[in-house]
Amino acid sequence: MLRRNYVSRLLLPQPRIIPHNLENQNGDKDTRLSLSHRLLTEAGYIHQETQGYFTLLPLGLRSLSKLENLLDQNLQSVGCQRLRMPSLTPSSYWERSHRKSEMGPELMSLKNRRGKEFVLAPTHEEALSQFFSSLRLSYKSMPLYVYQITNKYRDELNPKFGLLRANEFLMKDLYTFDVDQACAKETYKNMSVVYERFFSQLNVPFLRAVGSGASMGSSASHEYHFLTDAVGQDKIGTCNSCEQKFNMEVVENNYSCPECLNGTIEPLSQKAIEVAHTFHLGNKYSSVFNSDFMNKNAKMEHAEMCCFGIGLSRLLSASVEILSNESFIRWPETIAPYKVYLITPKKGSKEFNDAVCKVHHLYDDVLKYMSSDVLIDDTENKTIGAKLRYAKKIGIPLIIVFGKDSIKSVDPLVEIHTYKDQVLKLHPSSIKDFVLQMYDKV
Amino acid sequence: MLRRNYVSRLLLPQPRIIPHNLENQNGDKDTRLSLSHRLLTEAGYIHQETQGYFTLLPLGLRSLSKLENLLDQNLQSVGCQRLRMPSLTPSSYWERSHRKSEMGPELMSLKNRRGKEFVLAPTHEEALSQFFSSLRLSYKSMPLYVYQITNKYRDELNPKFGLLRANEFLMKDLYTFDVDQACAKETYKNMSVVYERFFSQLNVPFLRAVGSGASMGSSASHEYHFLTDAVGQDKIGTCNSCEQKFNMEVVENNYSCPECLNGTIEPLSQKAIEVAHTFHLGNKYSSVFNSDFMNKNAKMEHAEMCCFGIGLSRLLSASVEILSNESFIRWPETIAPYKVYLITPKKGSKEFNDAVCKVHHLYDDVLKYMSSDVLIDDTENKTIGAKLRYAKKIGIPLIIVFGKDSIKSVDPLVEIHTYKDQVLKLHPSSIKDFVLQMYDKV
Repeated sequence: MLRRNYVSRLLLPQPRIIPHNLENQNGDKDTRLSLSHRLLTEAGYIHQETQGYFTLLPLGLRSLSKLENLLDQNLQSVGCQRLRMPSLTPSSYWERSHRKSEMGPELMSLKNRRGKEFVLAPTHEEALSQFFSSLRLSYKSMPLYVYQITNKYRDELNPKFGLLRANEFLMKDLYTFDVDQACAKETYKNMSVVYERFFSQLNVPFLRAVGSGASMGSSASHEYHFLTDAVGQDKIGTCNSCEQKFNMEVVENNYSCPECLNGTIEPLSQKAIEVAHTFHLGNKYSSVFNSDFMNKNAKMEHAEMCCFGIGLSRLLSASVEILSNESFIRWPETIAPYKVYLITPKKGSKEFNDAVCKVHHLYDDVLKYMSSDVLIDDTENKTIGAKLRYAKKIGIPLIIVFGKDSIKSVDPLVEIHTYKDQVLKLHPSSIKDFVLQMYDKV
Repeated sequence: MLRRNYVSRLLLPQPRIIPHNLENQNGDKDTRLSLSHRLLTEAGYIHQETQGYFTLLPLGLRSLSKLENLLDQNLQSVGCQRLRMPSLTPSSYWERSHRKSEMGPELMSLKNRRGKEFVLAPTHEEALSQFFSSLRLSYKSMPLYVYQITNKYRDELNPKFGLLRANEFLMKDLYTFDVDQACAKETYKNMSVVYERFFSQLNVPFLRAVGSGASMGSSASHEYHFLTDAVGQDKIGTCNSCEQKFNMEVVENNYSCPECLNGTIEPLSQKAIEVAHTFHLGNKYSSVFNSDFMNKNAKMEHAEMCCFGIGLSRLLSASVEILSNESFIRWPETIAPYKVYLITPKKGSKEFNDAVCKVHHLYDDVLKYMSSDVLIDDTENKTIGAKLRYAKKIGIPLIIVFGKDSIKSVDPLVEIHTYKDQVLKLHPSSIKDFVLQMYDKV
């Protein structure tokens, strides 16, 4: 059954303007509302339930699912396998790794009715290491790459900026198990290529910096950042010779570049927000949990681990933060909730019936190729101008307006608005090809 | 990039036989291991982390995702919109609805570092009602149908039977908001049709019984059950006149049918396991949370609510429980992790190279239509017989064996094993059409 997507049927909170300053739970009034938090709330993508906890509304979940799928494709193309571990992990795991005390109050924990304590996991190194030890794999089945995309939990002292710093958030965490350090380094390098490709597909400028892996006991660690003074909290430096980037936390007070041994590290003027983090963990966890495989000599040996995280709900919001302006959301085109937005005239206008007919014809024609990615704004009592502003606010990359001119018998014209703020006028008969070409569906 | 799916690259715990009795955490040895728990564990679908908590391994997550997609399609075809609420919900919600005390120790809760208490939600009536009240919808935007598919939590006193009774589980919960009781009844009826269709697509015999809605404060309530003495815990009765089914809890000691007022309710001999539950909630929650909409007279009025749950991880496991035999998993075909399993001869055999070549040719030819649903068993050191047993164990609906006869120059033949325990012999050139026809991809 063909179902057309109508704006009037979409769950959208009443349009409202959110104050730029919101009181936080300390009664502290200077907590700025970030641009992405405000825009995503106003446009009906997210809804704050209580500080640090957000509902993803249908629009928001659509974008997030697209982001998930894009990442899935990239990871599976190099043999990563998706699984799903419980969010509640035994506290005993966290004691064995000493992170129960290291991470302290950031870990949320509870006791079940039998008094057994669990941690609502912010990450799964412990659980995966424990799981791997139960597999008793042969070296022939290595390397093993497994990942999940699940809710993670962190008791933020001061949750803020909407999805950027929330207590419950969606994270992709990939864990790799190799037979030795050389293989693990190869894996680490290959996954870095996958990350570069994934971030390039999003088309948001990013940088990769040497990061501090201390708390993870890592021998190599890199962070992926977007540059933004508005919500950035990290300082990044660049070597003036080899251009290697560093999180300034790593640099401490030694500004000579440890990579090329030649240049000096100079801090960038803009602050940065971390959206991904990778670690070569070595056997830090595998030695604690006896995450062993059987080697060529039939002896059990600790696996060499790496882990690779991407905060997906944060990445969603950070992309909006970087690409949008004060009034309109701009998405990485590949994760916009819908690709095409069709606007009909106001109900009751002379051109209404004919234009609606043309819109439906186009929709049913294009839908064959674009499945559910087209939205029709049929809202009653709204002028074309109001519909256009709304379409721009939620950030649909291609807006097609069927106004008065679209039903003229001679030289009918339809108006097209793109992300590049172009306004094109096209004959209705050429729109289909225009849309399909734009989205490469031919 | 085309990637073929190989069994050798799949994360599969070492094959092992699981004892039929496992000790539970009370040291109580008579806890039977259910058939589905044993088969899903042995075949590498699930892995128990600790009692009541399971990892879905790649095979298991594939089947679960297919189940999710099937349900998504059914719900979206009647205008349901998917969203995702936080799992941690303020305890204050549960106090307002009095379920904090009613559900007692089944609710898992924790305090954050500021001392605010949260419940790890087993269901979201409270949170959705609270959310709806913030929307202030007009009657014109009603009915509103919203659902989520997320992890839910229940502190089971005695978790058992694997995914059938776990503490962390995947549930679809749909909430509907109507303007009055008549509309809510209509919604309830329509969703029941959707449920019937969904369960029919799974092709597992099910029944729908009048259920007890007491704890939800419901005016109407129905349960969906599979019949199974092995893991069933409910008793169902049927009216000997109108055939209406009832959960015997509702019947109590009055066996005359309240539906047709004519017949007598007779208990079925088999026990039943509940896989879904629906409630007409009326304004039980909307009156507590002021979940109001603006009516035609511009007055705010409580919405009329229903809710519709399906335990997806339980349904997955219950389907296996019903359809499988002692040795082999049988899936509802639509949610088998792969549709086709291609078997090559043992490495080193004379026919190995030629047969592998034919398998790859078929795979690449069929894959165009079936995307990632084909699996090649390339395991080293395994005979065709061993591979066949494994394919049957994990329950792939169509197994195609390329043995010695497949490479004969005259009258080559390939062996096909189906769920119906048919064994067909076909010419290699006709397999493609056979597969595509079977899966309706022509």
